[in-house]
Amino acid sequence: MNERGLLIVLSGPSGVGKGTVRKAIFNEEDTKLQYSISMTTRSPRDGEVDGVDYFFKSREEFEELIKKDKLLEWAEYVGNYYGTPVDYVEETLQKGQDVMLEIEVQGALQVRKAFPEGLFIFLAPPSLNELKSRIQTRGTESEDLINNRMTVAKEEIEMMDAYDYVVENDKVEFACERIKSIVVAEHCRRERVANRYKRMLEVE
Amino acid sequence: MNERGLLIVLSGPSGVGKGTVRKAIFNEEDTKLQYSISMTTRSPRDGEVDGVDYFFKSREEFEELIKKDKLLEWAEYVGNYYGTPVDYVEETLQKGQDVMLEIEVQGALQVRKAFPEGLFIFLAPPSLNELKSRIQTRGTESEDLINNRMTVAKEEIEMMDAYDYVVENDKVEFACERIKSIVVAEHCRRERVANRYKRMLEVE
Repeated sequence: MNERGLLIVLSGPSGVGKGTVRKAIFNEEDTKLQYSISMTTRSPRDGEVDGVDYFFKSREEFEELIKKDKLLEWAEYVGNYYGTPVDYVEETLQKGQDVMLEIEVQGALQVRKAFPEGLFIFLAPPSLNELKSRIQTRGTESEDLINNRMTVAKEEIEMMDAYDYVVENDKVEFACERIKSIVVAEHCRRERVANRYKRMLEVE
Repeated sequence: MNERGLLIVLSGPSGVGKGTVRKAIFNEEDTKLQYSISMTTRSPRDGEVDGVDYFFKSREEFEELIKKDKLLEWAEYVGNYYGTPVDYVEETLQKGQDVMLEIEVQGALQVRKAFPEGLFIFLAPPSLNELKSRIQTRGTESEDLINNRMTVAKEEIEMMDAYDYVVENDKVEFACERIKSIVVAEHCRRERVANRYKRMLEVE
């Protein structure tokens, strides 16, 4: 029987670069992680593709899935729904494969309740000024919305305590290396592997 | 003020390849770990150098250090003393540098008491047959001593529960990568870094 895979939840304040870091990880050829694509009702940004970056859904479609209990987590965030379809996650973990979610902070807290054994990684900005300038550079938001996002971001940073790891996104490739290291390290945790060794002692 | 360094304790059954793995880690140019050289009363093996692999001491010298409480841990193992001088470890951690010890299992359990916050890594053989063949290949031991070591090794594997991580030494370079990943991951643990971020929220 396969060991069950790890659920890795990558989250952090809006604008910190979750999507960029996640893409960089999945662009590497040797990645063994499976990405679980989120669902959202927000409009695609330039270059975002349906079924690759997100499943883009209407509000009606999304609310139907909520009713049917088909979402591992969902949240309304700055006027849009975001969520994670549950079936894919569960099936992939059962196969022994690690699954990564990239989701908003509110959603991560819900997943923590359903999967307390998951790895919760908080992607953090090097500083709040840096975060603000990243949100501004994105250029899709008005000044009010930027301030709103900053307030939310500060609240989110205070939610760090619900996470297992904090990874600074000072540079995308450094953040990726740290995340990959966390996954490797967690596969070596004694609680996960000790039983395999103890069985070895019995049979030899 | 610097954050205090991490104490990393690499241990595991005799013959599993602790020394080889430790050397491979410290042979890398970019390592930021400091190695704390152990003390022993056993004879140097071929190629081992005093002050590099171990500090080789007489029994009288070693017992003097025990009396003066200058050893973080010590053990008598297959007729020889092994131990870790305490001052170097403490000073290096204070400077904010990570220190790695490579020690026997008995010693690791003592260090766990003095430094419960350390990272305890158990280097494990892929199988017990593999371990036996490694001990035999070393060629310095009689058949009786090999059987004795195997009995001790089985007992040691049962002590795995006192460790945080289990790293399989299937291949030296894989074991090294896993150990380096564990160190990176531990530096990202939320308990270690959350306070730094919370201070950021106060000043900006």
